[in-house]
Amino acid sequence: MNKTNYLLTIQRLILIFESMKFSTEELVEGIRLGNKRLIAKAITLVESKKSEHRIQAEELLKIVMPFTGKSIRVGITGVPGAGKSTFIENFGRLAISNGKKVAVLAIDPSSAINKGSILGDKTRMEELAKEENAFIRPSPSSGFLGGVANTTFETMMICEAAGYDYILIETVGVGQSEVLVADITDVFLFLKIIGGGDELQGIKRGIMEMVDVIFINKVDADNLQKAKNTKLELKRALDFIPPKEKNWKIPVLLGSALNNEGLGEVFEKINEFIDLKKKTQRFEEVRVQQAEKRFEYWVQEYILGMMKRNNSVEEAYIEHKKNASAMVSNPSTEAKLFVEKFLRDSRSVSRDSENI
Amino acid sequence: MNKTNYLLTIQRLILIFESMKFSTEELVEGIRLGNKRLIAKAITLVESKKSEHRIQAEELLKIVMPFTGKSIRVGITGVPGAGKSTFIENFGRLAISNGKKVAVLAIDPSSAINKGSILGDKTRMEELAKEENAFIRPSPSSGFLGGVANTTFETMMICEAAGYDYILIETVGVGQSEVLVADITDVFLFLKIIGGGDELQGIKRGIMEMVDVIFINKVDADNLQKAKNTKLELKRALDFIPPKEKNWKIPVLLGSALNNEGLGEVFEKINEFIDLKKKTQRFEEVRVQQAEKRFEYWVQEYILGMMKRNNSVEEAYIEHKKNASAMVSNPSTEAKLFVEKFLRDSRSVSRDSENI
Repeated sequence: MNKTNYLLTIQRLILIFESMKFSTEELVEGIRLGNKRLIAKAITLVESKKSEHRIQAEELLKIVMPFTGKSIRVGITGVPGAGKSTFIENFGRLAISNGKKVAVLAIDPSSAINKGSILGDKTRMEELAKEENAFIRPSPSSGFLGGVANTTFETMMICEAAGYDYILIETVGVGQSEVLVADITDVFLFLKIIGGGDELQGIKRGIMEMVDVIFINKVDADNLQKAKNTKLELKRALDFIPPKEKNWKIPVLLGSALNNEGLGEVFEKINEFIDLKKKTQRFEEVRVQQAEKRFEYWVQEYILGMMKRNNSVEEAYIEHKKNASAMVSNPSTEAKLFVEKFLRDSRSVSRDSENI
Repeated sequence: MNKTNYLLTIQRLILIFESMKFSTEELVEGIRLGNKRLIAKAITLVESKKSEHRIQAEELLKIVMPFTGKSIRVGITGVPGAGKSTFIENFGRLAISNGKKVAVLAIDPSSAINKGSILGDKTRMEELAKEENAFIRPSPSSGFLGGVANTTFETMMICEAAGYDYILIETVGVGQSEVLVADITDVFLFLKIIGGGDELQGIKRGIMEMVDVIFINKVDADNLQKAKNTKLELKRALDFIPPKEKNWKIPVLLGSALNNEGLGEVFEKINEFIDLKKKTQRFEEVRVQQAEKRFEYWVQEYILGMMKRNNSVEEAYIEHKKNASAMVSNPSTEAKLFVEKFLRDSRSVSRDSENI
């Protein structure tokens, strides 16, 4: 068998593997044993929108639930070109060399083209991908933003059940994606680069409010002084923005992910921050708040979904909202009229059929 | 009749006036003629929670609706002691001397004690209160925060229908109140004072993100240099926080409201900002977004209200939320279970009785 045939055979075997059905028990066992192919399979399951998959996914998540929650969840953001992939690759390897297991996930609502693959994202983070104690999952394939975050949260649960110590969640920062990442992580890291004279601009609205650690990347001898100035200015700006956690002064660190410079400090600061949160009971407290927020979000989503499945209700929603925005009458009045209609309709539907 | 008796007679007459019922037409006419007592009466009506008052309030608001929307809505925040009352008093008088009519409202969730009075809040802003072209309304008496904002919005509509050009809405900044004020105003003003060496601290999370104009108050010869430094530091910090409107550089102005210094500049900057928003169509655009947001908020409020009126549904909500936060299962799973129960219950109720 020549090399080409060999490769074709592998690809055929992978296709067969991809089409195989696994029982929930098989998946759970695979996850608990840290089998990466079965972990990936389980993630594909929770990402699926098919209702039979959804049922199995919920079953699976219920079983692994007791094994979740033990990791440190790290959100990472920065503009395209800030060097996030390189950072994650070398930061991940550093964590692994400290005896940790690292999983990498991404929220990237813009990359609907890049479908998830059980081979993982081979085009980037090649070195990290080779590590036994690393697991890399590319962006969930598609879906509205809130849905993507939920999928990422469930993917994180599976990684936690598989024993990963650090879950790194990357976002490219399109739309509200940072907020979604901040709402499912314990610590939020902002990668900044220094550009052409306009250091202080170009930071997205709201980012400075959610950040816990800042890393100025791509610093070398040529731009060191500039980087130091940027650091000073950032620190001054941060004085105006009280940190999320009391007693935590947001550190601004300098370094180069490519040259493995400054990553140890980031690792230390992240752990220091987590220790502080645990010592002050804020770690658990924030996670509880996050879960409550997610619950409230999904209650609204499901109710909105119910409304949208009913055409006349959806039309009424659009109409009343339009009346509200055109100030035909008071928005709260329009809301009341709509909710009354919604309730009437869901009752009349229930009289017609009990199966909806 | 001696003075004491004279005063007692007035108080008695006011009590009688307060108990009088006015038809919607009488109130509308009073509002349109700018009769302050009837404006106050109409506001008391929209603040009432009694269902018969609510019905009349909605009727009234529907009639005055075409006369609303013409004012410039100014949100004002600052810590207690920043001099908000003095600022509003002298700023209001300045606007009046420029031929404008000014209404002053407040969102103050902490002052549930201070019930609204048809005499207005005589204890502060005495000079402004004497002006024919000023109308001062103290905080709405009570209610949860979102409700207070809605009441303030409706009060604003009445003031607009009465021909007020500037509506100044003050908040003391407890909880989420600034967000609520920012969501019903066109321009947001932040009053800052310089304190004892710790200039850069003590700015509430999120404020810098919603501000359009900053006024450093209580500046005199003694602290002028300090004020200038604070201004510089604020301007530097603002470089990290992109303004809400493109092409708008948030001005940091110095002055003393008490000594009428710098208020003209604030007046100019506010008008400049409004002109820019109008020129770029952002004025109308943001108001439409605000109305839509308010509609969505109230849809959720009313649905939540429906849930809470049904005991078993409310219990289920609390229980599933608790399960979610304790991570008994996935928050989105708990949300789904709850919504299914809610729908089932509202159906079975509708079968039992058609009058709910």
